[in-house]
Amino acid sequence: MSEPKQLHLTAFMRPVSLHTGAWRYPGSYPDANFNLKHITSFIQKLEAAKFDAFFMADHLAVLNMPVEALKRSHTVTSFEPFTLLSALSQVTDKIGLAATASTTYDEPYHIARRFASLDHLSDGRAAWNIVTTGNPESAKNFGLDEHVEHSERYKRAREFYDVVTGLWDSFADDAFIRDRESGVYFDPEKLHVLNHKGDELKVKGPLNIARPVQGWPVIVQAGQSEPGRQLAAETAEVVFCSPRDLDAAKALYADIKGRTKAAGRDPNHLKILPAALIVIGDTVEDAKNKRLKLDTFVHYDSAIASLSIALGSDATGFDPDKPLPADIPETNSSKTSRLGVIQLAEKDKLTVRQLAQRLGGYSGLAFVGTPETVAEELEKWLAEDAADGFTVTFPFLPQGLDDVAERLIPELQRRGIFRKDYEGTTLREHLGLPRPKNQFFG
Amino acid sequence: MSEPKQLHLTAFMRPVSLHTGAWRYPGSYPDANFNLKHITSFIQKLEAAKFDAFFMADHLAVLNMPVEALKRSHTVTSFEPFTLLSALSQVTDKIGLAATASTTYDEPYHIARRFASLDHLSDGRAAWNIVTTGNPESAKNFGLDEHVEHSERYKRAREFYDVVTGLWDSFADDAFIRDRESGVYFDPEKLHVLNHKGDELKVKGPLNIARPVQGWPVIVQAGQSEPGRQLAAETAEVVFCSPRDLDAAKALYADIKGRTKAAGRDPNHLKILPAALIVIGDTVEDAKNKRLKLDTFVHYDSAIASLSIALGSDATGFDPDKPLPADIPETNSSKTSRLGVIQLAEKDKLTVRQLAQRLGGYSGLAFVGTPETVAEELEKWLAEDAADGFTVTFPFLPQGLDDVAERLIPELQRRGIFRKDYEGTTLREHLGLPRPKNQFFG
Repeated sequence: MSEPKQLHLTAFMRPVSLHTGAWRYPGSYPDANFNLKHITSFIQKLEAAKFDAFFMADHLAVLNMPVEALKRSHTVTSFEPFTLLSALSQVTDKIGLAATASTTYDEPYHIARRFASLDHLSDGRAAWNIVTTGNPESAKNFGLDEHVEHSERYKRAREFYDVVTGLWDSFADDAFIRDRESGVYFDPEKLHVLNHKGDELKVKGPLNIARPVQGWPVIVQAGQSEPGRQLAAETAEVVFCSPRDLDAAKALYADIKGRTKAAGRDPNHLKILPAALIVIGDTVEDAKNKRLKLDTFVHYDSAIASLSIALGSDATGFDPDKPLPADIPETNSSKTSRLGVIQLAEKDKLTVRQLAQRLGGYSGLAFVGTPETVAEELEKWLAEDAADGFTVTFPFLPQGLDDVAERLIPELQRRGIFRKDYEGTTLREHLGLPRPKNQFFG
Repeated sequence: MSEPKQLHLTAFMRPVSLHTGAWRYPGSYPDANFNLKHITSFIQKLEAAKFDAFFMADHLAVLNMPVEALKRSHTVTSFEPFTLLSALSQVTDKIGLAATASTTYDEPYHIARRFASLDHLSDGRAAWNIVTTGNPESAKNFGLDEHVEHSERYKRAREFYDVVTGLWDSFADDAFIRDRESGVYFDPEKLHVLNHKGDELKVKGPLNIARPVQGWPVIVQAGQSEPGRQLAAETAEVVFCSPRDLDAAKALYADIKGRTKAAGRDPNHLKILPAALIVIGDTVEDAKNKRLKLDTFVHYDSAIASLSIALGSDATGFDPDKPLPADIPETNSSKTSRLGVIQLAEKDKLTVRQLAQRLGGYSGLAFVGTPETVAEELEKWLAEDAADGFTVTFPFLPQGLDDVAERLIPELQRRGIFRKDYEGTTLREHLGLPRPKNQFFG
């Protein structure tokens, strides 16, 4: 009898709750997003609960919302991911450290170097969440007037990935001899100069840092659009996605795993972890009430701003008590997001106000119930090939995280679908991913 | 009676020793440049010795030298400064953390954000060593064929500084209210949008992080050229320079302090810290022998190349175990350098081999002697307005660092010119520098 398929869990930690009202929830830490002591205690609890990784989202601008909404947002001040995760590497031993980094507004030499450095500092726990940066305000912080167009961003991302992984392979794993006697520090035969010259990028190399502990840090991909899925199939080892429900998740899972196989890769070497809000209560009713209470902390101004961002169009002129207008234009900023919002409004027959409030809080996939009912749902998703695990979002901190760590995790362990201890020391080992061979020194 | 002028000491830590032969010295750690456990023990010793700061140099490329020399260099693999210093912020409490960051090959939004994040993570201990990047190989790692020209680099650096400091002032110090009751997270009147549009840079802002603990991280400047001195006078709070001797140091000190005053700043708010190798022995002779022994670890091929360049004549035919020939021709290219080398050989009675290895190892300012003789020299430099302190380089690790921390520092304390404990908690407090006012919210 083989062991049942195992869940993989990462904790999605920016803002500290994705739910915009969370900082106002009784008992929460209003400054948790920007308080290192709190974040340290969160990651240490997640490590005690044997989570695969701590996952930092990121933005390269203050979110583009009207000031009346912005002033209510706990996202306006956050730590930068590399500095935060490097600090956290010193107060943890095993949990993975996933950082979001943009291929649109950064340079591959910098990105390759920072992830290699984080991987060495953490003894092999780094992961790169490759994003092309959806927020159009970012362009204005990097010398541009207009956001880089969607397909152009993905073209650069694909080439950027080749350059970064090529730079990681600059030195063979055994290049450094450090022979005091002969005075030879490394074997120059084991140094590869990349000399990349492509349509988008020109990078000579080599990187000035040894090959990462994991060979390559784990590659995470968050897109769900057509080019996003294809990029994931070709490059990703973890996919972070947002299916609406079980059927959508199964379809997405089959599609991405199929593309992965078609790209010549082992589908088991790509883990699909849908994002999910998990709310635990003493009863299902109690959990639902917690979520309802949480939603009451979302201000309508923020809610309507969230709707505008998700649609890529200004929603402030819409009639709040009518359905969403039919003629919302497709824009450059976020195709997948716009379509999801329109589908959600239709499916649940929501007015603009209801839709805005839903989006202003948290509108994605949610599991709301007791430890037993939630564990049962997660097990079903796992068994039915809808997911290899989840990218978990907590409703409010610290209580929402404690509920998952102390009540849900033991139930998952009892069912034999989640580890009781880490099997190895690197994030690749936690995720059951192979260490890539060096493409130049096999 | 007023207290004597106090020394400020930073430890220049990349490569772990600047001396190219240090990794071969008996008892040294050959991998110290890339071993977090060793670096952690070094910074903790420096903090126990009350150093002002731990200072990370940086390069954006593998150094451009022939492969026969490169293979002997411990500089080829190093941690990236922001990730390393963020990690070190969690294993120290007081010592400053200075990172080198380039204005030529990075973006001001990224740089402003990372330093602000490091300053928050370390409770106010960050410093930015502004460099324009001298290594022409760097350009090729960032899409360019040719290095950016010197005056163009300095023009961008000056504007870059304005943008970064402007971004740090995006929020007033008291912007974050986090009022649960009203749901207001920050006061939008206390948010400033920079909207910078200059000759070199266009950056909208605001930065998505609260104002740094120190207001602005401490500004360090390392140039010695004409535009470098002027940039320092206008912007720097710490200057890192390389005068040959006491007279040159006094002239440089007077020049930069004068320019600072001319720029409308208080000269006391700019600290001049010449770089110096410090070698401690039981006797002066013992210290000199340590240095000679250290030089023997420089490979003769690299050493003789350095000597040829410095003399402007091919030195490969000289007898390595004899003094320098008397008839070395004067060439157009290197009059000053040739004369300096000839004087050094005479003063220290060096053979051709020893001279070559000195130049190939570390040829800058050095204090070599007992704790008493070295302390006396440092005190003289301080008293005669040649320096406000030093950017210390250790000859080999860990012993060379231990000698300074455990033998020289107590002697400096006994003379009343170095602190016995930190006066405050931030790097600005260690250096006696004021916290800058927010330029937009006074």
